[in-house]
Amino acid sequence: MSTPYEISGQSYVGENLKRGSDRIFHSFNSASASNTPWEFFEANEALVDEACLLAKEAFKSFQQTSDQKRALFLRAIADEIEAWGDNLLAVFCMESSLPLSRARVERARTCHQLRSMADWIVTSKHAEAVIETSNNGDRPDLRKMMVPIGPIVVFGASNFPLAYSTAGGDTASALAAGCPVIVKSHPMHAATGEMVASSIIRAARATGMPNGVFSNLNASSYEVGKALVLHEAIAGVGFTGSLGGGRALFDLAASRSKPIPVFAEMGSTNPVVFFEGALNDEDVRQMWVEKMADSMSAGVGQFCTNPGLIFAVDSESLTAFIHALSERLNSVQAGDMLHPDIFKKFNQGVTDFVGQPGVVEHTNAASGTNFSASSRVLEVSGSVFCDNPNLHHEVFGPMSLVVRCADVEQLEMVVASLGGQLTGAVMGTTSDFETHKDVVEALKQRVGRLIYNGVPTGVEVNAAMQHGGPYPASTDARFTAVGVQSIKRWQRPISFQNCPQHLLPEVLRNENPNGVMRLVNGEFSSRHIE
Amino acid sequence: MSTPYEISGQSYVGENLKRGSDRIFHSFNSASASNTPWEFFEANEALVDEACLLAKEAFKSFQQTSDQKRALFLRAIADEIEAWGDNLLAVFCMESSLPLSRARVERARTCHQLRSMADWIVTSKHAEAVIETSNNGDRPDLRKMMVPIGPIVVFGASNFPLAYSTAGGDTASALAAGCPVIVKSHPMHAATGEMVASSIIRAARATGMPNGVFSNLNASSYEVGKALVLHEAIAGVGFTGSLGGGRALFDLAASRSKPIPVFAEMGSTNPVVFFEGALNDEDVRQMWVEKMADSMSAGVGQFCTNPGLIFAVDSESLTAFIHALSERLNSVQAGDMLHPDIFKKFNQGVTDFVGQPGVVEHTNAASGTNFSASSRVLEVSGSVFCDNPNLHHEVFGPMSLVVRCADVEQLEMVVASLGGQLTGAVMGTTSDFETHKDVVEALKQRVGRLIYNGVPTGVEVNAAMQHGGPYPASTDARFTAVGVQSIKRWQRPISFQNCPQHLLPEVLRNENPNGVMRLVNGEFSSRHIE
Repeated sequence: MSTPYEISGQSYVGENLKRGSDRIFHSFNSASASNTPWEFFEANEALVDEACLLAKEAFKSFQQTSDQKRALFLRAIADEIEAWGDNLLAVFCMESSLPLSRARVERARTCHQLRSMADWIVTSKHAEAVIETSNNGDRPDLRKMMVPIGPIVVFGASNFPLAYSTAGGDTASALAAGCPVIVKSHPMHAATGEMVASSIIRAARATGMPNGVFSNLNASSYEVGKALVLHEAIAGVGFTGSLGGGRALFDLAASRSKPIPVFAEMGSTNPVVFFEGALNDEDVRQMWVEKMADSMSAGVGQFCTNPGLIFAVDSESLTAFIHALSERLNSVQAGDMLHPDIFKKFNQGVTDFVGQPGVVEHTNAASGTNFSASSRVLEVSGSVFCDNPNLHHEVFGPMSLVVRCADVEQLEMVVASLGGQLTGAVMGTTSDFETHKDVVEALKQRVGRLIYNGVPTGVEVNAAMQHGGPYPASTDARFTAVGVQSIKRWQRPISFQNCPQHLLPEVLRNENPNGVMRLVNGEFSSRHIE
Repeated sequence: MSTPYEISGQSYVGENLKRGSDRIFHSFNSASASNTPWEFFEANEALVDEACLLAKEAFKSFQQTSDQKRALFLRAIADEIEAWGDNLLAVFCMESSLPLSRARVERARTCHQLRSMADWIVTSKHAEAVIETSNNGDRPDLRKMMVPIGPIVVFGASNFPLAYSTAGGDTASALAAGCPVIVKSHPMHAATGEMVASSIIRAARATGMPNGVFSNLNASSYEVGKALVLHEAIAGVGFTGSLGGGRALFDLAASRSKPIPVFAEMGSTNPVVFFEGALNDEDVRQMWVEKMADSMSAGVGQFCTNPGLIFAVDSESLTAFIHALSERLNSVQAGDMLHPDIFKKFNQGVTDFVGQPGVVEHTNAASGTNFSASSRVLEVSGSVFCDNPNLHHEVFGPMSLVVRCADVEQLEMVVASLGGQLTGAVMGTTSDFETHKDVVEALKQRVGRLIYNGVPTGVEVNAAMQHGGPYPASTDARFTAVGVQSIKRWQRPISFQNCPQHLLPEVLRNENPNGVMRLVNGEFSSRHIE
């Protein structure tokens, strides 16, 4: 595979490429309105079963690999992805219709995720070691650490062909934990998926990982995903996508005779609240017009953190802001959406919103080529918004609804009417935040990340990031999908009671040569235990 | 309420005692085979709604209480429980038919749980603070901590009227997190429940907690519990009890339009594997006979960690062990079970097991008074055990099934055939554990706590304890029900991005006057941030 065009169209069942069925599907280039040159073979239940049993077998040895060895594996995956050079980026662009600049940024993020998780596990921070010694035999010696839960199924995201798909955050965190991964490749970018899958397979071989530690199944239909989630060998599920898709997987997993956890990152409208201090001064307002326009149109609005809702109390400054924002967005060139299906859904969503009583549009909806979309700014009153649940759901793409509130009380009601969100932002002066602390507090209750004077797009990948919020932003607000702590989703604690020292995992022994920070008898310590 | 006999029989809806319906139920004393002197009024949906809305309102201020104030609240609850003196213990014994010595131990454990969680939160360890500074403006400043998820419903356990009921581990951990609690009181010990509930209410008043931070609803039927789990104000559920009960609540919670997490600690048979080194030497064998007999008969076998399965490879030593164990248990006086329903289920369970092909009994099943049960030792071959799923479930009470395996390979198969368990124990020499590392590893995969040369009963309450295992031991193996880390079940992370210093929660500010250990830019630090 020296060129991007040698795509087999087959699934990786462990190291082996297999067709599964003879049913074929294609990925698509929105910009040229044509299929990409490749054919993909739909996996079937036989491949699902084979991949799952292989993963179950691989788990036996993979979970016992040292953190150092798994870190080498993760770094090798990043190296292999980079080794594709521009070929991978070209395929990424063909399948997503996203620009090359975005492909570069996303590849960098993907490799950063893999390497930062490698850095994390070599310091054993993911093990969360806790030790309670026997107090001279008064009580049992108890030592606890996190261990992997088992094979994980990952559903790739349409809008992140690299960073949230084949070797994306879910895969990287599961492998870091010590869990084998089976990816249900996203059909919209199956060639990108196959290339990255081959990178993982090569990295696994090069670092001595067991066959079955990774599989990549091609499928455009629901059956393969369903069979994966219901397979007895599977211990958990990671998903990034729509509320409908995530909820369906959650329900399936909960219906199993042995239920398994599903972390689904689903819809979010990422409300942005503008207080007076961000609107009244003309220069400040103009800055926010520019920043918001950039955030709203970035990636043709196809980000889970796209700002879909703007809240503010009625004022002339707000009117000026809306007009300036709409004008600016009218001048942004329409961008190609990822896929005709997404384009169609976006248009349907905008049409549905515009058709609701009391909704007006401020933008021109300039028509572009093929499946390109321009940004849309709509407006509705706070009272109508509160009463109409049809205005609360996410429209995936570059559309924002401004909710003009009669007063601060209504603004608080509007915020309180929201479902869970990945992010919420407040724009204003510190004094605004203090004056309106009830609004800020109400927003805080509903979000995973509370942003002060910043747009919601742009997700830092580090230990302090929370990406995931109360339902329906995600199925379990107690975990993050981004950053090193996303590893926690795929781990469970185990306690060893009175285990002989040399039979303990290294991180729990009295000797602590690497100075791992542990909770010892209730206090943090990186020292040896005497 | 100066004597234990002034029981109102009503539910606490916040601070107020209310009847709900006029339907009445009683708790029961197995030892005397008669109802206790009190009448309890069944709560109804109106009380459920009132308690839930009160909890929702209380959450607004309770979640903002300082860790110091919540710690005072928890300590005040422990003080109030102790202030009942022997009166509470007398009611405990009447309703459970357990001995006074056990009542004392359980009260001590309950108060220890409350106080150890108070100690934990005053040091802000539960906040799990993570900070990534802006690197001189290169990137956003991100600061993450754990916050409470909302009102929690707790279902009391039949077998722990104090430690896993009204003010038990689930309640203590939820209050420690900052979540209001509504207890669905266990009908078998509703008077104990009312006394403890009144302690919590007094403690809440004395420490200035909002009304609604705690409610206690009496109910003997399923409807009240169901209405609680389905109420929109509820954010999570804690349950200790049977697999059937826990799974029903899990399914209900998953069916909500907004699903909520359920941590249910359910059945476990706590397998104990005996290797040669624990059986061949006569003195060692006799020690295990005594320890196992004590563990099996403790609390009339009514512990979630009761050893229900004993695995070993066929040998004359094993035969000697079984006979000595059975003989010893024959001499243990039959103990009163908690309730006639539990007694009936236990007998049915034993009868079902004895009726399975290939099962023989070694004990005499001496008959006791009323609802008292004597310990039972049964035996079956490894091959029969593997093939018969009817022998795998828990029989709640003093019954253990010895599985005699043909050889080590069969022993490994037997272990591999098990569902998830709270605990697993291995008895033998260190050299046994090394020789049979595949057996130990297979057991480790299935348990939350792996015990070396110790019986499973006796659960330490500290940070290194894992109480909870793969399904069906619990509904989510990623959490513990015992120890300070059980607080994690009721928390979610939130990130603050570019939040002004003085608007941040104290634990996330640059100043760190209490030296809280935090992860700062990837490294543990208890210092200020410059």
